[in-house]
Amino acid sequence: MLAEAAAPLGVEVVVLDPTPDCPAAPVARDQIVGGFDDADALAELAARADALTFEIELADPDLLDRVAEEHGVGVEPAPDTLRTIEDKLEQKQAYADAGIPVPPFRRVDDETDLRAAVEAFDGVMLKARTGGYDGRGNVPVQDPADAADALSAVGGPAMAEAFVDFARELSVIGVVGRDEVRTFPVTETIHREEILRETVVPARTTEDVAARADEVARDVLDFLDGRGVYGIELFETRDGEILVNEVAPRPHNSGHWTIEGSSASQFEQHVRAVLGWPLGTADARAPTVTANVLGDVEDPQDATLRGVDGVLSADCAAMHWYGKREARPLRKMGHFTLSDADADPDTLLARAKELRDGLTFREDATD
Amino acid sequence: MLAEAAAPLGVEVVVLDPTPDCPAAPVARDQIVGGFDDADALAELAARADALTFEIELADPDLLDRVAEEHGVGVEPAPDTLRTIEDKLEQKQAYADAGIPVPPFRRVDDETDLRAAVEAFDGVMLKARTGGYDGRGNVPVQDPADAADALSAVGGPAMAEAFVDFARELSVIGVVGRDEVRTFPVTETIHREEILRETVVPARTTEDVAARADEVARDVLDFLDGRGVYGIELFETRDGEILVNEVAPRPHNSGHWTIEGSSASQFEQHVRAVLGWPLGTADARAPTVTANVLGDVEDPQDATLRGVDGVLSADCAAMHWYGKREARPLRKMGHFTLSDADADPDTLLARAKELRDGLTFREDATD
Repeated sequence: MLAEAAAPLGVEVVVLDPTPDCPAAPVARDQIVGGFDDADALAELAARADALTFEIELADPDLLDRVAEEHGVGVEPAPDTLRTIEDKLEQKQAYADAGIPVPPFRRVDDETDLRAAVEAFDGVMLKARTGGYDGRGNVPVQDPADAADALSAVGGPAMAEAFVDFARELSVIGVVGRDEVRTFPVTETIHREEILRETVVPARTTEDVAARADEVARDVLDFLDGRGVYGIELFETRDGEILVNEVAPRPHNSGHWTIEGSSASQFEQHVRAVLGWPLGTADARAPTVTANVLGDVEDPQDATLRGVDGVLSADCAAMHWYGKREARPLRKMGHFTLSDADADPDTLLARAKELRDGLTFREDATD
Repeated sequence: MLAEAAAPLGVEVVVLDPTPDCPAAPVARDQIVGGFDDADALAELAARADALTFEIELADPDLLDRVAEEHGVGVEPAPDTLRTIEDKLEQKQAYADAGIPVPPFRRVDDETDLRAAVEAFDGVMLKARTGGYDGRGNVPVQDPADAADALSAVGGPAMAEAFVDFARELSVIGVVGRDEVRTFPVTETIHREEILRETVVPARTTEDVAARADEVARDVLDFLDGRGVYGIELFETRDGEILVNEVAPRPHNSGHWTIEGSSASQFEQHVRAVLGWPLGTADARAPTVTANVLGDVEDPQDATLRGVDGVLSADCAAMHWYGKREARPLRKMGHFTLSDADADPDTLLARAKELRDGLTFREDATD
């Protein structure tokens, strides 16, 4: 999606990805096949590029810094931001130290720490400090007796976070440019099994809460270093308080609605920001709902999506297929967006869910 | 732009183009370098493709038919439509025979024909029957004494067309799908030196005229064969009559506004139609103006656009750079679009012209 947004601007993309013929390959000028920590591959990329950025947090910040310096090319956002974010404990601690509101959390090095946290917070989400993604590496713990099992499931340095009794989850997509910061209208995010399923814009909350969410997000953006798009996941508590959950230093799934729903998408904004160009208009052109299409399979299988004519036929619908070859359980395979000035968010969300119910990867599904 | 629209749908594009590293190359899976009439290149393309289409009228219909049949792959629109359209005289005659309104015209084989036409129509536009594009191959003739010079300038079989005293020029972008036809809202087109400069949506005409334009366009679509997008250029005469000027059997410059201005762009619609998929919503999401960026140079030179920050900074603006390496006099190098629900067409058009006045390829221009 970044390469798709770069193309109209005349910006060519070379992508470094370990999967041969990765999803970006057909729309990129070229793919360098290599791991995110492959120094030779990264050096080849830097030698060909005017600017470097990343879309996944797995790159090694030290390596990025070194290669960028050797080749005299900028990296945005700053690798230092990646350092802050890649360790969830350090990330949370940094926000707390900066006065940014976060849920209660603790460092967990052993069973004693975890049992104490479970008792203090009346149950916790145990999170691997590094490498988690879409709920992987997260284990809910309600009973101190489960501490050993939970720690072994997480399998490394961890943190424990209090469960937030939230009214809803929100996100703010922000973009840090050369000399200005812009935020898109607040997005309502709906998760199940810790995986984003739908987004709703405008978020179905009060204006005050939306304004507070934007304010907190701008504090986060002010704290982090480097130009580019950030996805800032938030909790709205039952008393209307905003807490920061996690931050992604890149275009974020909760901002995919901006492709159809805003004048400039998060991907276009990222390109503009990384290159130091003026930012685009970050508005909401119409009520916009996005639904993720996940692998509804029990085992990996070839990715053939059935029932897609339903989405293609729907009013004001845009389909995005990511080109992944294999459907896996709950893997994000694509999404679709309904953006319609004449509809309200509730109606769009109901339509989106109905349309998604008509999609399946299962061969045994009946139409 | 077609490849950019195909990508989110998971449709890969291989492009056949005679220019190595052509503008589509960076976003296409692959480019086959070859002429539009290169049988080997076309066979290679057909062997790799599930469907064939064209974006320029220069392909040889017989060759397309033959290669498609040999490789068992469809071509849309039908090569027969290309046959009808590639000869402007035959095209006009076919519409007239089908009861579709066109300006008065005549076949011109020699000076005698031309002089007679100039006298009968009180001046004519002499047009080469084949190969014209963006006004090339068109010569206005007011005086019968200029007949010989005009014929030699056109340099081949020609037709003469009466000048239409039009109130404005319009276009309708239509899309013929598997089992339905859709048209986008009528576009107002503004030409200078016979080259499209701006488009305005909604067209600043009456509802009755817009409805009549849509009706005539649908008659044209009904007459032509094959799925895909068609750009239908129209005259609105001073008494509100609609006449067909020319038809392009492909996405058309006057439909570029649909990328930002409609739920599904003309390019996405073309992909859907060629593949036999359901068509998308062809609406106007907001008042939308597009301005072409032409080469403002006296001689060909490297294409470096100056002043582009003005467009990038403008509210609700989207820049499209075509990636052509060389700026030539009046060559279409890109366009930009302003799509803004809170603005009226007149205001958008004035803003677009002002922004374009800030763009130049000339090295000696002062900021």
